[in-house]
Amino acid sequence: MTTPVIRVGVIGAGFVGSAFIGLLLDQQRHDALVDAATASLELVAVAVRDLEKDHPGIPRSLVTDDAAGLAASGDIDILVEVAGGLEPTRSYIESALSRGVSVVTANKALMAARGTALARLGHEHGADLFYEGAVGGAVPILRALRTSLAGERIERVMGIVNGTTNFILSQMTAEGSDYLTALAEAQGRGYAEADPTADVEGFDAAAKVLILASLAFGTELRDERIAREGITGIRAVDIEFAKRAGYVIKLLGVAERVGEHGLSRRVHPAMVPVDHPLAAVHGPMNAVFVEGAVSGPLMWLGEGAGGAPTATAVLGDVLDAARNRVSGRHDVPFMVDDTLERVPAGDLPSVFYLSLDVADEPGVLASVASVFGRHQVSIRSMEQFGVGNEARLSFLTHHALARDVEATVEDLAAIESVDSIGACIRVIDGGSA
Amino acid sequence: MTTPVIRVGVIGAGFVGSAFIGLLLDQQRHDALVDAATASLELVAVAVRDLEKDHPGIPRSLVTDDAAGLAASGDIDILVEVAGGLEPTRSYIESALSRGVSVVTANKALMAARGTALARLGHEHGADLFYEGAVGGAVPILRALRTSLAGERIERVMGIVNGTTNFILSQMTAEGSDYLTALAEAQGRGYAEADPTADVEGFDAAAKVLILASLAFGTELRDERIAREGITGIRAVDIEFAKRAGYVIKLLGVAERVGEHGLSRRVHPAMVPVDHPLAAVHGPMNAVFVEGAVSGPLMWLGEGAGGAPTATAVLGDVLDAARNRVSGRHDVPFMVDDTLERVPAGDLPSVFYLSLDVADEPGVLASVASVFGRHQVSIRSMEQFGVGNEARLSFLTHHALARDVEATVEDLAAIESVDSIGACIRVIDGGSA
Repeated sequence: MTTPVIRVGVIGAGFVGSAFIGLLLDQQRHDALVDAATASLELVAVAVRDLEKDHPGIPRSLVTDDAAGLAASGDIDILVEVAGGLEPTRSYIESALSRGVSVVTANKALMAARGTALARLGHEHGADLFYEGAVGGAVPILRALRTSLAGERIERVMGIVNGTTNFILSQMTAEGSDYLTALAEAQGRGYAEADPTADVEGFDAAAKVLILASLAFGTELRDERIAREGITGIRAVDIEFAKRAGYVIKLLGVAERVGEHGLSRRVHPAMVPVDHPLAAVHGPMNAVFVEGAVSGPLMWLGEGAGGAPTATAVLGDVLDAARNRVSGRHDVPFMVDDTLERVPAGDLPSVFYLSLDVADEPGVLASVASVFGRHQVSIRSMEQFGVGNEARLSFLTHHALARDVEATVEDLAAIESVDSIGACIRVIDGGSA
Repeated sequence: MTTPVIRVGVIGAGFVGSAFIGLLLDQQRHDALVDAATASLELVAVAVRDLEKDHPGIPRSLVTDDAAGLAASGDIDILVEVAGGLEPTRSYIESALSRGVSVVTANKALMAARGTALARLGHEHGADLFYEGAVGGAVPILRALRTSLAGERIERVMGIVNGTTNFILSQMTAEGSDYLTALAEAQGRGYAEADPTADVEGFDAAAKVLILASLAFGTELRDERIAREGITGIRAVDIEFAKRAGYVIKLLGVAERVGEHGLSRRVHPAMVPVDHPLAAVHGPMNAVFVEGAVSGPLMWLGEGAGGAPTATAVLGDVLDAARNRVSGRHDVPFMVDDTLERVPAGDLPSVFYLSLDVADEPGVLASVASVFGRHQVSIRSMEQFGVGNEARLSFLTHHALARDVEATVEDLAAIESVDSIGACIRVIDGGSA
């Protein structure tokens, strides 16, 4: 029996691209890849931005600067897109899929914006669209949602899906340092960009939540915005309070069913109980925690970023696409559940942590408490720190609607003896956050 | 386009079988299952041991006591075997596979003994053999090894793959209780059998290590025995020492490469650093930690046992087998790496913890230390507890060969002033255990 040949084109030769090409051309792994792909994988072209630049490990004869031509070529079976960006990348992927060429990408932004429509385009033309590398680096969560959990009713997905923020919060927890010190440390180690906005404000995590939700719940993706809070307001005192109370603060991306037809998708910091598996996800690691109706809790953990880990996810997808190609099939199409309705984050109940700096004078607590009461936010516990002129009040509420807590915070800010209001953080308590 | 029909026969209607049938017949999930299977799944027969017994949730007309006839029937596409046992179960599975019927099983003992040969038989006849439910309950680790990690060179797999022992060790850690008290608690809660031998002596974990190793490293399975130590010798004082030193004691199943062509497979308790992801696996949960050469560390966590969680793993396999059937293909065949040689556990270096009860008299430490020295076991640290006649010496060694540490323990036992020797436990230190 002759071994079929699967022809692979690659767009992008950055960290992920060159690591992927290294894996693909590794002679020591050649036989293992043939076994796993049920085919011989042949690298036929690599589209790069700058032909003049040196691309170590990539045969000169394969390098081209014509990405559009490669994507439109009838001469490849699988297109690997690791260049990133929305345009013209989208047009390359469309061009390949509409010719029946399977596409493997690690393009988080594009998949979060257009993944479901592109998957459908591929399905119409008998092509696969895989993007394991777009969420959680090496963590093989997307394939698990598509295959192992295909028959499961998923109730909730909670992920630590941004390594930068998890590193910063882990540093603050381990060292007692403040946000800016931990951010500088992250930047020094290459875990955070010079402009860290996309990470620390939760944009990156939000894109991943959109992708996870589409696979876990069948939500269509149409350039949506979801409720999003970052970590810039977390202070050392909040981390300290969490520790004393048996929690760790994590930035979570959450997608969960609400009632029979509701779905909430959001990103925010949360206090996670120390014995919860997500509490043990340290430094730049990523993890996705899934609650199935029958399977119970499941968690996947691994390196969330980096060229090599992401390249292994890309390679896994390429092997899958190659096997499909050889057996003349493509993957189960994306299934939309159009009965699901978006539930605004404000409509969801949670326990909240809230802390205020107040002037320590008679009557302060009474006026603060009356604001909570006015908004039906019931206080579970209160701690006062500090003496003299200044005091800090830290509250844990009973379950309250996020909207009511927000209104409480607004009204508290108007009280004269309240100097400042610190972070307002959801607390994971008996499952929900 | 008409929906293809995939005919499913089930052998076994115990906890897993009836939970699986419940999932299969759940009307609310019907459409989702058709989507995921790319077919309509039809339950055609359920073979039970006792026809007289009531089987709630299973249509009377489908119940039979002729398991052999069902397995040999040309009338099914997928056989689900959840009866357990080695014989005659093996003959049922052989009979189905050799007729080209795909088989899904949760039979850990049979897969550990014969899984690779049966997979090969299936491959010859165009049938799948899937057994996700055999390791880690709902944790979808086997499919990940077969698919997402198919292109990865795996260096090490370390699993907490027995919920009973993990519950017992978690209890001892949380409550400070001794082994027998924690065992009784586990039995009271239904986590341990009246005769707990298979769990506490590591037999169950050893079977799972064999299965994991066959998929991670391509080892052939031929009724092998592997090095195995249980948890019955772990004392409250060992747990306490571990805690003080920053470790948690876990029963680990390990399979790892040693050098270029060696493979070690073994089960033993180990001290796991508290910040290691495996340290946060509490109670009856299971987890498998995988180190890939390129992917870095990855971990899967979930409920390791129970009818419902295991049934979700079985269902995931049935959906996969159904999709393959519909597209006329079967899975990548099992690949043997026959270059791998078994490395005896004694040949492996590790840091060890060791503790002795000794008479507190002059010269004891010197004679103990000289025994370590004689066997080239170098001491990293020593603590002495207790005063008066009795003292306990607790040692951590530098990396030493397990064989040399065993010889040290034997010689120590011969010293008159050594009253007793407690647990001798490997310490995970910089990766290896």
